[in-house]
Amino acid sequence: MSLPTAGAIEDALAEARRKYRNWGRWGPDDALGTLNYVDDAKRASALALARAGRVFSLAIELNRDGPRSGDRGRGNPIHTMLDSGLEAAAGQGFPHGFGDADDVVFMPLRAGTHWDGLGHVYDNAVAWNGRRCEDVVTSTGDQVTGVERQAARFVSRGVLLDVARVIGDTAVGGGQLPDGFAITEEHLRATIAAQGPSAFAGRGDIVLIRTGQLARCRQRGSWDGYAAGSAPGLSFASLAWLYGSEIAAVATDTFSVEVLPPEFDPPCRLPLHQIAIPNTGLFLGEMFDLDALAADCAADGNYEFLLVAVGLPITGGVGAPVNPIAIK
Amino acid sequence: MSLPTAGAIEDALAEARRKYRNWGRWGPDDALGTLNYVDDAKRASALALARAGRVFSLAIELNRDGPRSGDRGRGNPIHTMLDSGLEAAAGQGFPHGFGDADDVVFMPLRAGTHWDGLGHVYDNAVAWNGRRCEDVVTSTGDQVTGVERQAARFVSRGVLLDVARVIGDTAVGGGQLPDGFAITEEHLRATIAAQGPSAFAGRGDIVLIRTGQLARCRQRGSWDGYAAGSAPGLSFASLAWLYGSEIAAVATDTFSVEVLPPEFDPPCRLPLHQIAIPNTGLFLGEMFDLDALAADCAADGNYEFLLVAVGLPITGGVGAPVNPIAIK
Amino acid sequence: MSLPTAGAIEDALAEARRKYRNWGRWGPDDALGTLNYVDDAKRASALALARAGRVFSLAIELNRDGPRSGDRGRGNPIHTMLDSGLEAAAGQGFPHGFGDADDVVFMPLRAGTHWDGLGHVYDNAVAWNGRRCEDVVTSTGDQVTGVERQAARFVSRGVLLDVARVIGDTAVGGGQLPDGFAITEEHLRATIAAQGPSAFAGRGDIVLIRTGQLARCRQRGSWDGYAAGSAPGLSFASLAWLYGSEIAAVATDTFSVEVLPPEFDPPCRLPLHQIAIPNTGLFLGEMFDLDALAADCAADGNYEFLLVAVGLPITGGVGAPVNPIAIK
Amino acid sequence: MSLPTAGAIEDALAEARRKYRNWGRWGPDDALGTLNYVDDAKRASALALARAGRVFSLAIELNRDGPRSGDRGRGNPIHTMLDSGLEAAAGQGFPHGFGDADDVVFMPLRAGTHWDGLGHVYDNAVAWNGRRCEDVVTSTGDQVTGVERQAARFVSRGVLLDVARVIGDTAVGGGQLPDGFAITEEHLRATIAAQGPSAFAGRGDIVLIRTGQLARCRQRGSWDGYAAGSAPGLSFASLAWLYGSEIAAVATDTFSVEVLPPEFDPPCRLPLHQIAIPNTGLFLGEMFDLDALAADCAADGNYEFLLVAVGLPITGGVGAPVNPIAIK
Repeated sequence: MSLPTAGAIEDALAEARRKYRNWGRWGPDDALGTLNYVDDAKRASALALARAGRVFSLAIELNRDGPRSGDRGRGNPIHTMLDSGLEAAAGQGFPHGFGDADDVVFMPLRAGTHWDGLGHVYDNAVAWNGRRCEDVVTSTGDQVTGVERQAARFVSRGVLLDVARVIGDTAVGGGQLPDGFAITEEHLRATIAAQGPSAFAGRGDIVLIRTGQLARCRQRGSWDGYAAGSAPGLSFASLAWLYGSEIAAVATDTFSVEVLPPEFDPPCRLPLHQIAIPNTGLFLGEMFDLDALAADCAADGNYEFLLVAVGLPITGGVGAPVNPIAIK
Repeated sequence: MSLPTAGAIEDALAEARRKYRNWGRWGPDDALGTLNYVDDAKRASALALARAGRVFSLAIELNRDGPRSGDRGRGNPIHTMLDSGLEAAAGQGFPHGFGDADDVVFMPLRAGTHWDGLGHVYDNAVAWNGRRCEDVVTSTGDQVTGVERQAARFVSRGVLLDVARVIGDTAVGGGQLPDGFAITEEHLRATIAAQGPSAFAGRGDIVLIRTGQLARCRQRGSWDGYAAGSAPGLSFASLAWLYGSEIAAVATDTFSVEVLPPEFDPPCRLPLHQIAIPNTGLFLGEMFDLDALAADCAADGNYEFLLVAVGLPITGGVGAPVNPIAIK
Repeated sequence: MSLPTAGAIEDALAEARRKYRNWGRWGPDDALGTLNYVDDAKRASALALARAGRVFSLAIELNRDGPRSGDRGRGNPIHTMLDSGLEAAAGQGFPHGFGDADDVVFMPLRAGTHWDGLGHVYDNAVAWNGRRCEDVVTSTGDQVTGVERQAARFVSRGVLLDVARVIGDTAVGGGQLPDGFAITEEHLRATIAAQGPSAFAGRGDIVLIRTGQLARCRQRGSWDGYAAGSAPGLSFASLAWLYGSEIAAVATDTFSVEVLPPEFDPPCRLPLHQIAIPNTGLFLGEMFDLDALAADCAADGNYEFLLVAVGLPITGGVGAPVNPIAIK
Repeated sequence: MSLPTAGAIEDALAEARRKYRNWGRWGPDDALGTLNYVDDAKRASALALARAGRVFSLAIELNRDGPRSGDRGRGNPIHTMLDSGLEAAAGQGFPHGFGDADDVVFMPLRAGTHWDGLGHVYDNAVAWNGRRCEDVVTSTGDQVTGVERQAARFVSRGVLLDVARVIGDTAVGGGQLPDGFAITEEHLRATIAAQGPSAFAGRGDIVLIRTGQLARCRQRGSWDGYAAGSAPGLSFASLAWLYGSEIAAVATDTFSVEVLPPEFDPPCRLPLHQIAIPNTGLFLGEMFDLDALAADCAADGNYEFLLVAVGLPITGGVGAPVNPIAIK
């Protein structure tokens, strides 16, 4: 699929639905989507990739100063204490010197590093596998494809595609793609070719794509602009590769995986999401911090690893907060 | 250490502080406690244990019907939707058929399967490594030993000690210890002996102890009694083994790790916590669902595995929600 | 209407719907229900009742130790600090000695003293004024009859009917009705007669009915049993009076207004709610603390007053937290 | 007091502390501050002002689209449903056609129309009446002067000073003061003089000052700029009048009562708050919607009324959400 002329979004969506839809592929009751590509054998081969015991956490910290703007009720995590060391020092009424503190958090499930659940996005009111969205996600959450059903499945071979380092501006740390840069299938193939055999991505892999946008935020010490506006990301045209490669999931170091603003005439929301989630059943991971891992991969030339990226099993969630761990 | 006469708690606490305190062992600025026992070599050897690619999630689901009672403000997670499939079906104003749902959660960090943070419990107003608790945990959270500092470290060799199956009542599914049963060092050693060489537990290991209490709740379909009152768990006397074995962490399938009611005269809060967390710097994991893993271990006679139990990096947290994954 | 034979609930509901339904009475777009009975003239006459300037707050405090059990996700308010005096004392980085603290609350809207919104209860999936409940209350709240639409309307003449003092056991403080006591129209009329002319209740009045249950909780220092199980309250048969008197609202010092357990064979939820809210459009107020007001009324023999019971205008709420103020 | 030269903030603060401090005035245990000026007689005279029964709610609605920016964890209210009409329509398992919906809210206590609590602001780590702030407000809230202690006291004579209409630009609806306009004592006196005898403000009154900023937001349909940056408001120099007039409270239609940016050289936080709350014990009300009331006052020339502005009694709160009701 080549990228259609900007503006022809309805045609592009129609073509993408026809080509990249996996409805029924894993039966009418499926709640796993492309995670079906991962089986014991896949995991066993992934395990064999981790030898040295080097661990990389790909999560950003969850706190009040995170990237979210509060738009549409989606703010940053608010973590507060039920009791603190001050209460304990002042005396809590427990005998024998015992004291404790405890805490709570209020947060959007997609506030920090997370997987989009299959119930997160719809295409013309239809959710993954062809279900009516109002039958899937009600006020009590996603009753069919909630994230608790997939949480433990995100264990597979991980592959880093450091597009930023291969194609971006390497005058800045680690390489960076400019905001608005659309990563096409050609960019992905060029990155794989440049990185060598360990970067091959195929059936059941979890692909991590580095754009350098998060590194840019880190450099300037601010999330400004990260959660809204313009960002590098996957081109709508990359859906051909995302679908055809039979990968289990794709994640980026950006807020929305796909390039922003979208490549079609405004107004247009998130066209890649609209195909990938409800039609392909593909899992999208957002706000993955790939910088330390990328530096290690660049140093040893090895871009594959064991990835354990299991989310919290929040019943009915349409997003899964996760602390993804890459192990080499 | 033998269990002191019931009632002599002050003496027992004093003796335990003298024997099991690790303050300064890893320097004055330490925020890792017994996780210091885990290094790349330890992780590398743990990785070698996972071959088949079988994955076991040890987390209970997070929802309104969880085990917490609401006592002291500590209730179950409340997961609600900002938008749902109904809003999307009714039309959200997005163009080209795009629709989405999003959700939030309010939850105590220790509501489900979790690690206690080092800032969770104090001994006479002193936190881990000898710091005054009011200098560590304020209204903005644990500023010194918050869970974000250890989250990625919980990757090591896991060992299951299925005390319930070895010593408990095996007439019930998987074996169960009765409420109030105190697991001593002798019980742990007997379990290891019965399970064979794969059950050896030592430096840097994460030890999972199964009591069968969670299985009992599952059987009767109710959490009643799980979060309060009487439970099987570790004896205060087991601190000798917990300390001496140099394990990195210990977790159980109970609400509080230690036996309840405590073995000392009332009133008495959580004496094992009071030593283990602020004095030993040991990580305690609570509400781990060990039943499926235990059945697998019983079937193949292999009680060791790769354990990836990384919590969410909530800045300043004194508890870390986690979806622990055992891989064999 | 006389109370039907226990068990004949379907017949009783059918009869009540026929007799006490106000659908269409105030037009098809109505969002005010029985608050339509209150107009400027009514308020003006209510204002004339307040002369001395004595003020009585009828709210219970909102905190973690409130009456709610956490059942169905409905716990007590959790109030926590974003910053506290400790942070300010330690220095927040503001110049010239400025410091501040701020706080947040997570709470069910019906956690403490509140009005039930018109969108709170349905009768066979139909909400107030005959609307389908799924068209009224979605994940974004009550879009037709949300509490923000009535909040400012709860200003009228208040009348206290101290049934507990007139009919209950006056050997205990202020008089108390036993749990399970069903207050009928006859009890209400007898109370009015005993209290004298100031206790007349009619069109547009807000009627406060004291059962003594809250006083019982206060005496024993515990909310145990208040939020569940057995409670004194209005009989299903009192609907005739609630409807016919054309009062604007009725509130009690209990958790659920109506007698518990219900007067019909189990299982049965809240039959008086099922008629009063969606059929009559009547506002029910719960957990009103009437004890201090009742003592004053008993002392001066005057049972009428200005009542200002305006809730927080939470857009789309189906419950309105309120600090009701009676002024004599 | 005349406004000091810009920049001389330390001198101005010192002078203001000396002149406007009420510590000890109502005893060492005081938790009411300037609300002590309101007694039964004051309330009785206020009641006499309300004759017609016209009611004006002065609250803005509480929802996700409110004025707060999320800065420092202080976002807008997030109201979500535990159950909605969709769940009820789909069947909740209740017998006889019963169905219900329920909701929760997470909100800063100062998210919408509110009173600042006495524990909200400190002057050099000292709270109202000379207490150390860390002794007053801990992680469990304001234990000495929490808003539950004053909630019911906000019943008194209200006076509207429509400075915007008298002094501002009346070419725009209702009159508006420009952002950054500092309202001095002279402006207040001129407004009173222009409005006539009903606008006299003295001991125990609650004074509502209209700047027109909220009307400006309403006109352009956006809160942008309301919660931060530049706003009309009370000059630091107005403290002389606020103190000397012995009013019980002052509220405005702005986010912060006082003029922004402050009149002193940067950096400078909220100097009027720093004197008024911890030193004077004066209650500040923010985000009061005064437009409808102001239009009525302008129409009938009567600027006094009964004001019932009782907040929610959230135990230990440093802010009190309120739906203030003016009755004429």
